[in-house]
Amino acid sequence: MRAAYYAGKHAIEVGPCRPVDAGPGQVRIRVSHCGICGTDLHLYHGHMDHRVKLPQVIGHEMSGTIESVGVDSAGWREGDRVTVRPLDPCGSCPACLAGHGHVCMKLKVLGIDEPGAFQALWTVPAHTLHRIPDGLDLAHAALIEPVAVACHDVRLGELKAGEFAVVLGGGPIGALVASVAREAGARVLVSEINPFRVALLGRLGFDVVNPRESDLTAIVNERTGGAGADAVFEVSGSEPGAAIMADLLRVRGRVVLVAVFSKPVPVNLHRFFWRELRLIGTRVYEPEDFDEAIRLLASGAQPFTELITGVYSLDELQRGLQEMERGADVMKILVDCGS
Amino acid sequence: MRAAYYAGKHAIEVGPCRPVDAGPGQVRIRVSHCGICGTDLHLYHGHMDHRVKLPQVIGHEMSGTIESVGVDSAGWREGDRVTVRPLDPCGSCPACLAGHGHVCMKLKVLGIDEPGAFQALWTVPAHTLHRIPDGLDLAHAALIEPVAVACHDVRLGELKAGEFAVVLGGGPIGALVASVAREAGARVLVSEINPFRVALLGRLGFDVVNPRESDLTAIVNERTGGAGADAVFEVSGSEPGAAIMADLLRVRGRVVLVAVFSKPVPVNLHRFFWRELRLIGTRVYEPEDFDEAIRLLASGAQPFTELITGVYSLDELQRGLQEMERGADVMKILVDCGS
Repeated sequence: MRAAYYAGKHAIEVGPCRPVDAGPGQVRIRVSHCGICGTDLHLYHGHMDHRVKLPQVIGHEMSGTIESVGVDSAGWREGDRVTVRPLDPCGSCPACLAGHGHVCMKLKVLGIDEPGAFQALWTVPAHTLHRIPDGLDLAHAALIEPVAVACHDVRLGELKAGEFAVVLGGGPIGALVASVAREAGARVLVSEINPFRVALLGRLGFDVVNPRESDLTAIVNERTGGAGADAVFEVSGSEPGAAIMADLLRVRGRVVLVAVFSKPVPVNLHRFFWRELRLIGTRVYEPEDFDEAIRLLASGAQPFTELITGVYSLDELQRGLQEMERGADVMKILVDCGS
Repeated sequence: MRAAYYAGKHAIEVGPCRPVDAGPGQVRIRVSHCGICGTDLHLYHGHMDHRVKLPQVIGHEMSGTIESVGVDSAGWREGDRVTVRPLDPCGSCPACLAGHGHVCMKLKVLGIDEPGAFQALWTVPAHTLHRIPDGLDLAHAALIEPVAVACHDVRLGELKAGEFAVVLGGGPIGALVASVAREAGARVLVSEINPFRVALLGRLGFDVVNPRESDLTAIVNERTGGAGADAVFEVSGSEPGAAIMADLLRVRGRVVLVAVFSKPVPVNLHRFFWRELRLIGTRVYEPEDFDEAIRLLASGAQPFTELITGVYSLDELQRGLQEMERGADVMKILVDCGS
């Protein structure tokens, strides 16, 4: 079988790989599709080399079919269509003991701290599995993981029907957050600077503003009768996003922090004080977010699958990363791991 | 009668003042005591000149006795001992309509946007009044307003018994937050750099650390078994405080933002993401916070009054401001407005 390896900064190698037997409490999955995540791009840039063992198979947004089942994996059998919630918490740190294992203080993320899914056969702990419903296409099911991120963000942001939400950053996660927020009944405005993404989101029915061309704050105030937005999802990870996020909110509004900021950035804390705003940090997902993501994808309620702009072979993984890197006309790229 | 006026940057003038009759819905109060607030110092520095009409009587942390009652001020009569919740919301902005009048978008604060309490007779809307219980000394009752700030902060921070709270900044408000947090059953650690305040808080039984002399993060981790604090109250308004606040918290911990930051400062948003932290902006108080502050002060449960380090005459207001300005050995200074 074959796998795509991260082999060091800017280097992806595709080559043979020896399948790992499913041990106790494990299953081996024949991987169907695996999406390329922003985190994979971050890995590719060498920013997470302290967490990987080179060369390492990466990838964690996947779908597939169980190929073999180890002992002590009750409830699962060969042929089951599954996706993986790629988190392996320690179970004993203060975060785990408090019931927040998804942000375990020693969390192992499959595809980062452990081998990932850009390979034909992937062996994982059975406790990470979620079942894919019959009606959901396996390629589309590779979106479950990023949709679960969006479900987590909208849930922790306590977004309610009728509220006005601004999504700063209309890349794959921003687009999914906007979709889940719309499904929750919110009015959604997306702020995005990439023309391809602006156009794509516009075709999907979103109200999209390019903040380099329009006054975002003025537009939000206009849309909300001068009150400000109920919630802002900061998904851009940019200094301008961090600088403006608080200014867009109504009194007691919420910033839902989704993006990964690699260094401290200036934040208008005065506005948090003045309007009694809240900021809610969010990271990955909990099991219920996977359940909700599966339900939403299976329902077909939102055009999630329209965000897939390409399905590449394993050999084309590096091409996909390069396209994402240069801001090409792409949104979500999947890799067909069976190809 | 006499009043102390803010007459421009670094200028306080004490002179005669004509009492204002209590109009409809108003009462006139014979002011007993009025504390000097950090906001008064900010005014004195000229930073809020856009909000005042010179010369203007300032002051808003007061206690007194009703001297006369205007029409339509049902429920109040001459001789009632009262304090003033010095907020006058517009009643019609989106914040007021949503029930958040204390952070009204056109809020008038008595003592800033309207004349204040550093005078013998102060005329205010009756809707701002809270009754002072018989057993509570009028001088001590001048602490009700700042204690209400602390009650608001602890309430919005949802601090629970047994939690570990860090208070960054042990000035008057930090000391009151620490006291209210202790009363709520939390374990409290105060971070303060002023030696006089460190010593005073130590005498009052608080665990106090000077972060310039000790490693605050290491101490918090040690005190919490490596988990981190449940809540951090940022009361210092300093860049070092903003820089460290997130680093002190456990997974899903809360920063309660109390201080006024006059400009954007760097914040470690990565830590908010990584540990799913929350930041809760807080400003002034709501009526229930005044009720709770009165209850706490009357109960004598915490040594609030030990924070009073001086009671000055109206003529000494500027001296008090100068002492606060230079970081002298002071905590809370009251002005005896009847002197």
